Amino acid sequence: MRLRDLGEFGLIDRIERAVRRAGAAQGVVLGIGDDAAVLRPGRNEDLVASTDAVVERVHFRFDWEPARSIGRRALAAALSDLAAMGARPLGVLAALAAPPSLDVAHADGLVRGLIEGARRWDAPLVGGNVTRARDTALTLSVIGAVPRGRALRRSGARAGDRLFVTGTLGASALAVARMGRGQRARLAPEPRLAAGRALARLASVGACIDVSDGLVADLGHLLDASGVGAVVDPARLPAPRGFAAACRRAGADPRRLLVAGGEDYELLFTLRPQGPGARALAARLGVPVAEIGAITAARGLRGVGRGGGGFTHF
Amino acid sequence: MRLRDLGEFGLIDRIERAVRRAGAAQGVVLGIGDDAAVLRPGRNEDLVASTDAVVERVHFRFDWEPARSIGRRALAAALSDLAAMGARPLGVLAALAAPPSLDVAHADGLVRGLIEGARRWDAPLVGGNVTRARDTALTLSVIGAVPRGRALRRSGARAGDRLFVTGTLGASALAVARMGRGQRARLAPEPRLAAGRALARLASVGACIDVSDGLVADLGHLLDASGVGAVVDPARLPAPRGFAAACRRAGADPRRLLVAGGEDYELLFTLRPQGPGARALAARLGVPVAEIGAITAARGLRGVGRGGGGFTHF
Repeated sequence: MRLRDLGEFGLIDRIERAVRRAGAAQGVVLGIGDDAAVLRPGRNEDLVASTDAVVERVHFRFDWEPARSIGRRALAAALSDLAAMGARPLGVLAALAAPPSLDVAHADGLVRGLIEGARRWDAPLVGGNVTRARDTALTLSVIGAVPRGRALRRSGARAGDRLFVTGTLGASALAVARMGRGQRARLAPEPRLAAGRALARLASVGACIDVSDGLVADLGHLLDASGVGAVVDPARLPAPRGFAAACRRAGADPRRLLVAGGEDYELLFTLRPQGPGARALAARLGVPVAEIGAITAARGLRGVGRGGGGFTHF
Repeated sequence: MRLRDLGEFGLIDRIERAVRRAGAAQGVVLGIGDDAAVLRPGRNEDLVASTDAVVERVHFRFDWEPARSIGRRALAAALSDLAAMGARPLGVLAALAAPPSLDVAHADGLVRGLIEGARRWDAPLVGGNVTRARDTALTLSVIGAVPRGRALRRSGARAGDRLFVTGTLGASALAVARMGRGQRARLAPEPRLAAGRALARLASVGACIDVSDGLVADLGHLLDASGVGAVVDPARLPAPRGFAAACRRAGADPRRLLVAGGEDYELLFTLRPQGPGARALAARLGVPVAEIGAITAARGLRGVGRGGGGFTHF
C-alpha cells in the first residue's frame, strides 16, 4: 500500500493510534491530537528546545537501512542536542514529509522507530505534522528541561580546562562506510542524556557540545564559541574495540573516521582543572570518559603526540 | 547567487546574523547558535508546543508570492496553533530544507519574512536547522506558555454552548483563487494571539480551534474531539467587505470559500450559555466576533437558515 491510498488524515490517524498505544507519559498534560501539546516543566527549570531534520538521499536511504532504524536514529540525533545542554526530555514533535508514492510500510517503520526511541529515552511524542513532498523527510523538534541556570553551553570553556569525550568515536562513520560497500552494518547511536544531566550538575563543568558533525568540526564550534583553542592528543581518542581492523575491511582510514566521522552523538566537554579525573567522572556520568586534551588561550586546534614532541595541525 | 555558492554553514551564518540583528527577546535565556535554545516560562505556566510545515508547490510557489510573504505566512500558521491554545509565544524553531540551486534571494526572503513576523507577533526565533532537499520547505516549531491548567482544547464543547468565530472567513481562499488566475493578491493572515490569550482567561470558554483547513473541516475536528454536534447558520458566517463581488471577479463561489476556505487562522470557539454576548466578547478579545451557531447533543453538523425553517447538510 502507498501513502496516496491512505491519505493525509488516514496517515495522521494511524500515527496517533500508534502513539496512543505507547501510553501516557509523565509531564505531558495533553499529548498528540489537539492544536498543540501541553507540557509541564518543573518549577525551577529552564526550557531547552532544538530542531533537527533528516532527508532521504541526504541523510538516509531506505535501501541501506530499515525504516525503523532511520526513525530511531533521527530521534537519537535530535535528543543528543538536549543531552549536550544537560536537559531531560519533556516532549518531541515529529513533522513527516513524504511523497504519495511512499510505501506505507516505510512510513510505519519510521513511526515505529520514533516510538521505540521515545520509550527508550523517556521522550514522549506529543505532536507532529504530516505533509506531501517529493523527498521523505523527518523534522524532529525536541523540548527539554534543565535545572534553572544550569544549561550547558558551547561557550563555557576557559584556558586550562581539561577536554573530555564520552564513549567512543568513529562507530557511526564506520557503519556508513560499510553500508556504502553494501555490507550489513547497524547504526544505533545513543544520545547521552543521563551523562548530560549529570554533567549539568557538576560545579566544575566548562563547555559542552555533542559530536554530530565529527570531533574536529564540533570541537571547532566549541572553541569558536568560547574564544579559545585546544591541544588534542590523537593517541587518546577513544575508538571502539577492533576498530582499526574493521576499518581496513571496509576500506576506510581509521584515523580519519576517528577525528572527522560524525553521528556518534558522544558528549565533548571541558572541566576546570580542579574537577574530577576521568575515572571519577566516568562513575558520575555512568559512561566511559576519555581525557583527550586541554583548552589553550591561543586560538586554533593542535594535535600533540603522547611524547609531547611535535604536533600536527588537524 | 545560488545556495550552493554559499554552502550550509554560510547560510547558517547568514541566518544567525539576521536573527541577531533583530535583537534580544524577553524570556530567551540563550537564543540561536548553541546546541539548543534556553527559554524561561513563568512559574505558573504550562508549556504549549506545536509544529507545522510548508512545502514548495504544495503550500506555496515562489512565482505566485514574494518569499518574504511565504515566510511570514508560514509563521502565522504555526503561531495560530498557539493562539488556539490561548498561549503566548516563547520561541520559534525554524528548519529550512532547500535545494542547492535555490536563489539565495529566496532564502533571504523567507528568513526576512520569519524575522518580521517574529517581531510583529513577539515570537523570537531561537533556533533552527538547515538541510539540503529537492523541495524548499520550512518546518516551524513553536513553543508557548499558558496560565497553568488554562490551555484551550478542542474537546471542551458541551451541548448548549454558543459557537463563535473571530474576524472574517474566506479572505485567504479568495487570495489563492486570484493568484491561481495570475491576479495580484495579498496573503497576510494574522494569528489571533491576543484573542486566544483573552479567551483562555474566560471562565465561560468551552472549546477552541483555529480555522486552518476551513470552517467545516475544523469545526468537524472540534465536534469530534468534544463528542457533540452543531447547528450553524450560513447567513451569519462573517465575510470580508465586498467578498461576493470579489469572488465573482475571481470566478470563485463565495459560499464555498466561506465554509471550506482554509488558512484564515481565525479562532472558532464555544462559550457556555451564561457567557458574554458577541459584542461584549469582541471588546474582551479585541477582534470582531460573530455568533454563528450552537452546539447540540446530537452528533453531526447541520446548517439552519435564519428563518429557522429548513436545513442543509454542509
